[in-house]
Amino acid sequence: MSTPALPQTATAEQGPFGITAPAGFRAAGVPAGLKSTGKPDVAVVVNDGPLKHAAAVFTSNRVAAAPVHWSRQVVSDGRADAVVLNSGGANACTGPEGFGNTHRTAEHTAERLGVSASDVVVCSTGLIGVQLPMDRLIPGVDAAVDALGTGGEHDGGAAAAAAIMTTDSVSKQSGFAGTGYSIGGMAKGAGMLAPGLATMLVVLTTDAAVEPAELDRALRAATRVSFDRADSDGCMSTNDTVVLLASGAAGAPADPEEFAAGLAAVCTDLALQLIHDAEGAAHDIAIRTFNAADEADAEVVGRAVARSNLFKTAIFGQDPNWGRVLSAVGTTDAAFEPDRLNVSINGVQVCRAGGVGEDRDLVDLSGREVTVEIDLAAGEAEATIWTNDLTHDYVHENSAYSS
Amino acid sequence: MSTPALPQTATAEQGPFGITAPAGFRAAGVPAGLKSTGKPDVAVVVNDGPLKHAAAVFTSNRVAAAPVHWSRQVVSDGRADAVVLNSGGANACTGPEGFGNTHRTAEHTAERLGVSASDVVVCSTGLIGVQLPMDRLIPGVDAAVDALGTGGEHDGGAAAAAAIMTTDSVSKQSGFAGTGYSIGGMAKGAGMLAPGLATMLVVLTTDAAVEPAELDRALRAATRVSFDRADSDGCMSTNDTVVLLASGAAGAPADPEEFAAGLAAVCTDLALQLIHDAEGAAHDIAIRTFNAADEADAEVVGRAVARSNLFKTAIFGQDPNWGRVLSAVGTTDAAFEPDRLNVSINGVQVCRAGGVGEDRDLVDLSGREVTVEIDLAAGEAEATIWTNDLTHDYVHENSAYSS
Repeated sequence: MSTPALPQTATAEQGPFGITAPAGFRAAGVPAGLKSTGKPDVAVVVNDGPLKHAAAVFTSNRVAAAPVHWSRQVVSDGRADAVVLNSGGANACTGPEGFGNTHRTAEHTAERLGVSASDVVVCSTGLIGVQLPMDRLIPGVDAAVDALGTGGEHDGGAAAAAAIMTTDSVSKQSGFAGTGYSIGGMAKGAGMLAPGLATMLVVLTTDAAVEPAELDRALRAATRVSFDRADSDGCMSTNDTVVLLASGAAGAPADPEEFAAGLAAVCTDLALQLIHDAEGAAHDIAIRTFNAADEADAEVVGRAVARSNLFKTAIFGQDPNWGRVLSAVGTTDAAFEPDRLNVSINGVQVCRAGGVGEDRDLVDLSGREVTVEIDLAAGEAEATIWTNDLTHDYVHENSAYSS
Repeated sequence: MSTPALPQTATAEQGPFGITAPAGFRAAGVPAGLKSTGKPDVAVVVNDGPLKHAAAVFTSNRVAAAPVHWSRQVVSDGRADAVVLNSGGANACTGPEGFGNTHRTAEHTAERLGVSASDVVVCSTGLIGVQLPMDRLIPGVDAAVDALGTGGEHDGGAAAAAAIMTTDSVSKQSGFAGTGYSIGGMAKGAGMLAPGLATMLVVLTTDAAVEPAELDRALRAATRVSFDRADSDGCMSTNDTVVLLASGAAGAPADPEEFAAGLAAVCTDLALQLIHDAEGAAHDIAIRTFNAADEADAEVVGRAVARSNLFKTAIFGQDPNWGRVLSAVGTTDAAFEPDRLNVSINGVQVCRAGGVGEDRDLVDLSGREVTVEIDLAAGEAEATIWTNDLTHDYVHENSAYSS
């Protein structure tokens, strides 16, 4: 993948890793019977402080789920003490009863933790238009609170990451070791991945002492170049939430530049894990648009290609069909001249000056990773959009199962 | 399908039907070896007058094919004497050589017909980025000119309609009987169907005496509510062309209102034939958005739903997943309140006031035709967008074959 150089993120072997790696956090994930499979489906994350700083970004979908409406209010003052998450139900399009259930979940979690309900973020994911089974969710919250743990032997972070999975095939965690502090993260999301955030629940933690305004700035900058550029299937969710909690337990404040870069690295790592595990995908595609007049142009071009079903099916079929790239580029209002466009697929410049370039048979699309590079010949800006191919498995998963 | 009441279009049994039904037109379609299958692939349509009036609309894709650049010039003066069309190659992204081939095709056709090359419209369809085999195309033009015929026994219109097919499974023709004149039409297009026109070549003929300015006005009004609202897979072509020729051979001028309505009926009939024959589709879906603040809002909402792969796969799976409708509606900036939205699928109001409505199990999606009705509760305007579901066959056809 043609990603810009980013600070190194951690893997499980390297530690710090996951949301309980930073000091000051406990987490748990338990099965509560919301999923018919009996797998874990309720998670709780607690910030034990001393600081309780928080920032969050949410779906820009106007049809937002009850927990999104609730959690927007919770973090508006820059403080959150805990996050309670469930899979097995999105609590979206559920009316006043659905909002009441979100409220009740926050109240119950707060009571058990001895904090205020107005400081408890709620996240839900699963089928739209179905009420949550509160008779199972509330006992699930109790069990999760009882099981709260940090990293190490009893890894609460890993348990929480498993409990928020829906059609994900693996849980997603990441981490970054800063100077005197660390950042951890977990994510879920496998379908409905699109800009303005994917269906995607993400919790990020840090033990750095960072003020809420700085958290908010760093989080928005990080999501703009990571989750917002992961566009697996063009569909925007009702529930997307990315929340960042800072405990300050590491003591010293973080260097703002290093912190922002580290956060962006963790977000990008998680975004790429989401793309890699997208429903039914056979290829992970990085669309790098360069020599653009500005970054917005590069983004809009990459997104247009990422949303072309004809391009996506061609990649599935291992067909380096650059005509489908150009016909998607041509639908945008980005600055370019059609007869100056160059397109390379996995390093072979199959389109040169808007026409036929190198032999398309030279392109090898047998591997999972695909890089499409679009030269707009109009400036010096660039952006990379990550997407997937459109496959039989995508159609199967999304036609056979409700979500 | 929930279409507005339109003047009756003709079927083959009822006549007038196809592009040679109106007086003053001859046509032919012949095999020239551009298609590997040996099927017809070159068509010529001639307007014998007395009038040679014409209007046309083209793809808004900025990466437009050579024949589009050429034909835009041809019709800019409101006159066209003939149309030469080929399948088996789009002549798009083919550089100066490609434009030279279009020019040469027009020159040769003009010479054979004794008209000016600057009055010959050229249309191509097929794979992007490949030069046309001129050594086969030019003899094909000769053969087509030799075979020119009107309707009736030697049906030149039907032959032309067959010669422009690509992955179409059937040829598409339509007709309208006006007061003292008629309108005929043919169309091709099965993939890459999208707004701003589908990959779509359409020739419309009339023997009414209509001035070019009026032809242009009527054509733009007709395409706006027909081809522009057929959005099978969200992909816009490099070659879309809809050309309307008027011979005036019927003598009397047409009533403008009747003519416009008849033309819209023919265009809508052809657009629905395209949707019905879209690549790999198992359902034809009419998305009617009503009670919108204005028609533009209704269109943007319908289009957002028509482009949701999750919605399209759900319909394929016969799953009345209204949550995927709402999550697509929520991405638009149309005027609506989320908690006032109603959605019916095949007559069952599965979403009421933004929440759960009637039992989704009441919805029968086993048939080919699906109607989704979205009540925005924001005004009195409406629009219908036609689309298809997303199926295994779509993925198969578009991953296995280049186009």
